[in-house]
Amino acid sequence: MAIKVGILGSTGYTGAGLLGILLNHPDVEVSWLSSEKFSGWNISRVFPHFGGFLDIECLSVSEHPGKIPVNIVFSCLPHGISGRFVSKVLDKGTRVIDFSRDFRFGDAVVYKKLFKQAHQYEDCLHKAVYGLPELYREKIRNAALVANPGCYSTVVILGLLPLAANGFLTGGSIIADIKAGISGGGRAPTLSRHFSEVNENMSASLRTARDQEAEMKYRLSELAGSPVTVEFVPHSVPVNRGILATIYCRLNDETDYERIYDIYKTHYGEEPFVSLLSKGKFPGVKDVAYSNICRIGLALRGSMLVIVAALDNLGKGVSGQAVQNMNIMFGFPENEGLAAPPIYP
Amino acid sequence: MAIKVGILGSTGYTGAGLLGILLNHPDVEVSWLSSEKFSGWNISRVFPHFGGFLDIECLSVSEHPGKIPVNIVFSCLPHGISGRFVSKVLDKGTRVIDFSRDFRFGDAVVYKKLFKQAHQYEDCLHKAVYGLPELYREKIRNAALVANPGCYSTVVILGLLPLAANGFLTGGSIIADIKAGISGGGRAPTLSRHFSEVNENMSASLRTARDQEAEMKYRLSELAGSPVTVEFVPHSVPVNRGILATIYCRLNDETDYERIYDIYKTHYGEEPFVSLLSKGKFPGVKDVAYSNICRIGLALRGSMLVIVAALDNLGKGVSGQAVQNMNIMFGFPENEGLAAPPIYP
Amino acid sequence: MAIKVGILGSTGYTGAGLLGILLNHPDVEVSWLSSEKFSGWNISRVFPHFGGFLDIECLSVSEHPGKIPVNIVFSCLPHGISGRFVSKVLDKGTRVIDFSRDFRFGDAVVYKKLFKQAHQYEDCLHKAVYGLPELYREKIRNAALVANPGCYSTVVILGLLPLAANGFLTGGSIIADIKAGISGGGRAPTLSRHFSEVNENMSASLRTARDQEAEMKYRLSELAGSPVTVEFVPHSVPVNRGILATIYCRLNDETDYERIYDIYKTHYGEEPFVSLLSKGKFPGVKDVAYSNICRIGLALRGSMLVIVAALDNLGKGVSGQAVQNMNIMFGFPENEGLAAPPIYP
Amino acid sequence: MAIKVGILGSTGYTGAGLLGILLNHPDVEVSWLSSEKFSGWNISRVFPHFGGFLDIECLSVSEHPGKIPVNIVFSCLPHGISGRFVSKVLDKGTRVIDFSRDFRFGDAVVYKKLFKQAHQYEDCLHKAVYGLPELYREKIRNAALVANPGCYSTVVILGLLPLAANGFLTGGSIIADIKAGISGGGRAPTLSRHFSEVNENMSASLRTARDQEAEMKYRLSELAGSPVTVEFVPHSVPVNRGILATIYCRLNDETDYERIYDIYKTHYGEEPFVSLLSKGKFPGVKDVAYSNICRIGLALRGSMLVIVAALDNLGKGVSGQAVQNMNIMFGFPENEGLAAPPIYP
Repeated sequence: MAIKVGILGSTGYTGAGLLGILLNHPDVEVSWLSSEKFSGWNISRVFPHFGGFLDIECLSVSEHPGKIPVNIVFSCLPHGISGRFVSKVLDKGTRVIDFSRDFRFGDAVVYKKLFKQAHQYEDCLHKAVYGLPELYREKIRNAALVANPGCYSTVVILGLLPLAANGFLTGGSIIADIKAGISGGGRAPTLSRHFSEVNENMSASLRTARDQEAEMKYRLSELAGSPVTVEFVPHSVPVNRGILATIYCRLNDETDYERIYDIYKTHYGEEPFVSLLSKGKFPGVKDVAYSNICRIGLALRGSMLVIVAALDNLGKGVSGQAVQNMNIMFGFPENEGLAAPPIYP
Repeated sequence: MAIKVGILGSTGYTGAGLLGILLNHPDVEVSWLSSEKFSGWNISRVFPHFGGFLDIECLSVSEHPGKIPVNIVFSCLPHGISGRFVSKVLDKGTRVIDFSRDFRFGDAVVYKKLFKQAHQYEDCLHKAVYGLPELYREKIRNAALVANPGCYSTVVILGLLPLAANGFLTGGSIIADIKAGISGGGRAPTLSRHFSEVNENMSASLRTARDQEAEMKYRLSELAGSPVTVEFVPHSVPVNRGILATIYCRLNDETDYERIYDIYKTHYGEEPFVSLLSKGKFPGVKDVAYSNICRIGLALRGSMLVIVAALDNLGKGVSGQAVQNMNIMFGFPENEGLAAPPIYP
Repeated sequence: MAIKVGILGSTGYTGAGLLGILLNHPDVEVSWLSSEKFSGWNISRVFPHFGGFLDIECLSVSEHPGKIPVNIVFSCLPHGISGRFVSKVLDKGTRVIDFSRDFRFGDAVVYKKLFKQAHQYEDCLHKAVYGLPELYREKIRNAALVANPGCYSTVVILGLLPLAANGFLTGGSIIADIKAGISGGGRAPTLSRHFSEVNENMSASLRTARDQEAEMKYRLSELAGSPVTVEFVPHSVPVNRGILATIYCRLNDETDYERIYDIYKTHYGEEPFVSLLSKGKFPGVKDVAYSNICRIGLALRGSMLVIVAALDNLGKGVSGQAVQNMNIMFGFPENEGLAAPPIYP
Repeated sequence: MAIKVGILGSTGYTGAGLLGILLNHPDVEVSWLSSEKFSGWNISRVFPHFGGFLDIECLSVSEHPGKIPVNIVFSCLPHGISGRFVSKVLDKGTRVIDFSRDFRFGDAVVYKKLFKQAHQYEDCLHKAVYGLPELYREKIRNAALVANPGCYSTVVILGLLPLAANGFLTGGSIIADIKAGISGGGRAPTLSRHFSEVNENMSASLRTARDQEAEMKYRLSELAGSPVTVEFVPHSVPVNRGILATIYCRLNDETDYERIYDIYKTHYGEEPFVSLLSKGKFPGVKDVAYSNICRIGLALRGSMLVIVAALDNLGKGVSGQAVQNMNIMFGFPENEGLAAPPIYP
C-alpha cells in the first residue's frame, strides 16, 4: 500500500523535481501540496508540464498540516521559514524531510555562530539526521527528521568522502571550484537569473552559498576527525541543470594514483548512486542529467589530486536525494522511482 | 516474461532515446545492439550516461540478425539502407519497427516518384503499417512491419487530424511553420550543427525534409479523401530537443471556435498521448520535454485557425512513439515505459 | 563638432544598445542619461561592460530635460509614459527620436480605437514622422519628432515593402510567423524571461504585440493604397538577440520568381542597410547579429512566396535604426557609427 | 595611407574575428586571404555575415605569398603547419603575426622537450617576440615576427603578471581553473563540439591544452626569475565566446588585500586593455564580450588570493590582441579598430 505524502512549498523547482519523481514512484501517493504564491491554483496551472498527470489544488500552508494525515512531509520552504513548519509537523508525529538548511548543522552553537541568531527549534535539531545516505544511511532509516543536504555540499562531500574517511584530508588544502546551472537559484525572477543576463555569460560568485561552505567543512571535519578547510567558489554557467565540481586537493602523503583509485573504488563499491569512472575518464553534467547519480573521475598530477564530480542539482543535488532518503526511511528499495538512467542528449 | 529486443544502428540519438526508454520498460530485455561506427565498443563507452545501466557490446550489423533470436527489431538505420536489413529480419519472421522513411509510403509508385528510384522491397512495403497509433492503432496491433512516422509528419498530422477526419481540409490552404531543436539532425558532426554555428542562431531550411512534406500530405490526403496541400517550412532553433509546429489553416466553413474545439476534444478524448490544452492556452516545448506527449492549443482569428502543437522529437517524435507502437504490437499497456510526466525545467 | 545627446530611460536593453553605438559614433557626445530605477548610479555600475568607456551618472527624469541643453533626445521610456516627456522636450525645441509606440500611428483616431483611450499629445502626433528610412527618408531629414518603429513591424514591413509598393499585396493573405530572441522583452525580471523557463524552450505568443500587428497593417495599407491584412504570430526562441520573420504571401498575380526577385533587387538596390540575398539563399539571425543590416531571402513555391527576413532586434530592430534616423536628421553619413559588419560567431 | 594585409588560413573563427576587426580599422586594407578548404570561394560565401562588407576570393596558400605584396601577414594556420609558411613570408622581408604556438617558446630546446621534435625554423624562432603587449610592448614595436599568445596563456598571465613582477609567485602553488566557450575549439566539425553534445553540458578537459600550460609557466617563470608552477584545468562551457579564469594563489607573504590591490592597480594603471575592477567586484564574460578588454577582480581569503579574469577568446584572446600587436608594430594608436566597448546583452 502506498504511503501518503504532503509537500510544503511545492511550486518552486525543487517541488517540481520532487513531484516529477514521486509521480513515477509506485509506493507513493501525493495527498496535498502547499503554496502561498499559488494558493488555490491547480498544480498543472502552475506547471503546465504536469497537465494530465496531476490534478490537485495547492493549499495555503496555514490550511492543511494535520488536517490531511500523511506518512511524510517534504518541506521545500525557504531557509529560516521551514523550521517553524517542520517543528509543527514533527509535533504531530509525522516524519519530515526538510530541504532547507535549518537542520543541517547538528549543533545549535554552530548554527548561531554562522547565522548570527539562536536556533529556534533546538528540540527538532536534536532529532535531525543529515540526509546524505552515503554517510548516514543507518541513522536515516529511523529518523523522524532528515535534513536534506545542500546541492554543493553533496557534490563536494561525495567527491572527498573516501579521502576524509581514510585520513587523507588532515591539514590539507582543498579548493572546490564549482560550476552550477541556473535552476539551483530557484524560480523567483531576479536580474541575476534573467535570461539575457545569464545566457552566453559565466561568472564567479564569491559571496554566495557561504552557508554551504560551512556545511561541507562541518561534515568533512566530523568525518575526518579534525578540521578540514575547503575554499569553495561557485560559478554560474548557462545551463538549466547540473553541477560540476573540480576539487583540487594537495595530498600530504606520498601516494600514487592506483592507491587513491582503489580507496574510492572500495569506498563506493556498493553505493547505488555514486559511480566511479574508469581511470582517465571524467564526467560531464550530461552524463548524470535527470538522474540521481553522482559520477566521479580522478586524476593525479604530482601530489595534486584533481577530483571531478558531477550531479544533477535537482536529482542527487536535492529532490532525487530526498526520495532516496524517503525510500530508506520507509524500507522501500533504495532506488525505487530513481532507477531510470540519465537522459541524453 | 519480457520480450527480447534488438536494435539496428543503436548509436545515434534515436538509439539513445530508444534505449533510455527501454531500460525502464518492465517487459523488455535488450538482447543486442548493432553499430558500424562503434562496432566492438561497449554501449556505455559510446554513451557514458548509460554507465552502470547497460553493459553490452555493439555488434557489426553483418554479425547478428538471426543469430541472436529476438521478438522485435528496431531499425534506426539511415534512409535507403534500413530497407535492406529490415527485409532480412522480416524474412526470418521477426517483427520490425523501422525508423527510416523506407516504408512510410504505402505505395511503391509514390515512392518512386518522390525518390526517383524504384522501391527495392515491395513485398515488405505491402506488409508495412504506418505507425501513428492515433491513425492506425488496430492495424499496428498485428503488423509484421511498422513504419515509424517522421517527427515533423507526426506533429503536423496530429495537429490537423481532427480537421481532416471531419472534412475541414478539403481544398484548404495549410501552412506548417516548424521550429525544431538540433538533435533531430542526428549525431554525425557537421558544420550545420556545430555548436558555435547553431548557438544564438535561428534559420529557415527551405529545402530540407521535403520527404516529410510529402509524407504528411500523403497521409492527410488519404484521411481527408481528397488532396491536402501543406506548405511546410522547418526552422532550426538552438535547443537540444523539441518541435513546435505553428499551423495556419484557412477554414472553408463558416465556423466558430467552440465547434472546432469540440471536434478536437471529441477526437482526442481517449488518446493517451495527445493532450488538448484548455481554451486560450498554447504549449511550449518544455511542457512535453522527455515525454511521449503531444500537446495542442487552438486559436481562431477570423477564418484563420492557428494550431500550435508541441512534442519532443526524441519522444513522440520518434523513439517514444516506437515504444508506443511496440506496446500495441505486443499487447502491453500502451503507456508502459512511457508513463512518466515531462521533466521541467 | 559633435552634437549633444540625451537619453531618457537609458538603463534597459535598448538604452544599452543605443549607448554602445553612440560611444563609437564620431559626431556624438552623450550629455546626459536618465533612469528612475538607477537614479544616482554611474552607468557603468548599471552596465559593468561600459566600465572604462563611459563615466556618467544617471539622473532622475524629473531633474534634467531642459537643464542640460542637447541637440537631440532619445526616449527609451515605456509606452504610454514616453509621450508625456517627449512633448515636454519638443516644447523646448529639441528634436526627439521616440522608441515607444506613442507616436507610431499618425492618426489619433486609429490610436484611440486601438488603445481604447484618447491620444494625449495630438499636437506632437502631427509632427511625428514614422522612422523607417526605407519608407520616409526625406521626411525624417527635417522631422522634429521621429517615431522609431517596432522591431516586428520593421522586419515585416521591410520583408513586404517591395510587394506593397508594386501592387502585389492587394487583398492578399499574409502570414508573418516571427521567431524572436529574448532581449526584446526588456530587462525587467519576469517569470516569462527567467532563464530556466526560457532556455531549451520555445513557444508561441498569440496575444502579445497586437499593437505591432496593427502598426504593420497600418503602414503597409498606407503604402499599398488599400487594406493589407497580416496574421502575425510571434514566437519566443532562446537566443539573446535576433528576429527571424518567415512571411507567407499568396500572390494574386500569375508571376514568376525572376520577376519578384527583380522587384526586390530594384527596390532595395540603393538601400545601405537592406541586403537581398542571392537566389536560393536565406539568412540566419547570426548573419546580421550586432549590426544594422536586415537581410532578406526569397523563395517561390507555386503561388506562395516565402520571404525570410532577419535583423538584430537591438540593431535595425531599434537602437541601430534610431541612430540611422539621427544620422539622416543631422546630415551625417547614414552609416556613421553603423558601418561595422555583423559579428560571428 | 593604409597598410596592406594578407591573412593565411582566414576561414576559421580566428580569421573571422580578425577580419571583423580589420574591416573597421581605418589604416588597414585587406589585400588577400588564403584558405585551402575554401580556395576559390568568395569570403562572403564562407561567412555570409560578411555579405556586402567584403568581396574577395580566398586563394590557395600555394598561390600567393609574395605575389601580392603586403605590409604584414597574419597566419591563422594550424600549429606545426604555420611555421613553414611564416618562414617563407619572413624570408621575403614581410612582417608576420603568427597565431600558432610554433614561435611562442623562445627556446628551441624547450620546444623540442615539449613537442618531442626539433624546431624546424630556428632562425625565425630567434626573431620571434612573444606578443603580449603588457609584457613586451617595446620589443613588439620593431619585431619582424610576433608570436601571438594562446588565449588561456593570455588570461592566466594577465591575471598573475603583477604578482610575478613583484616577487609574489616564488615557489607558490597556483591553480588556474578555466571556463571556456566553444568557439576556441575552432570551426572544424567534431563530436566534442557538436551542438547537442555541448549544449546543456559542461565538463573538464584534463588532457587538452598542455602546450598552453607550458607556455604560461614558461613566461611566468621568465618574469618571476624562478620556476612558477601552474596547475591548469580547462573546462568546456556552452557559450560561444569568452574565457573566465579563476586563479587560486596561496601567497607566501603575510599580506593584506589593500597591498595586493595596489600592486595590481599600479601595474595596470596605464594599460589600455586591462581593467582592474573595484574592490569586491568580479567580471563575467559578458562584461568583455566582443572587445579587446581583459577585466580582473581580486579577493583575498586568509592567505588565499582568488583572481578572476575574463576576456573574449576571439578578442583579447587572439584576434583583438593580434590587431593590438599590429598597431604597436606600425605605430598606430594602440586601440585603433579596438576602441568599441563590449556589447551587451
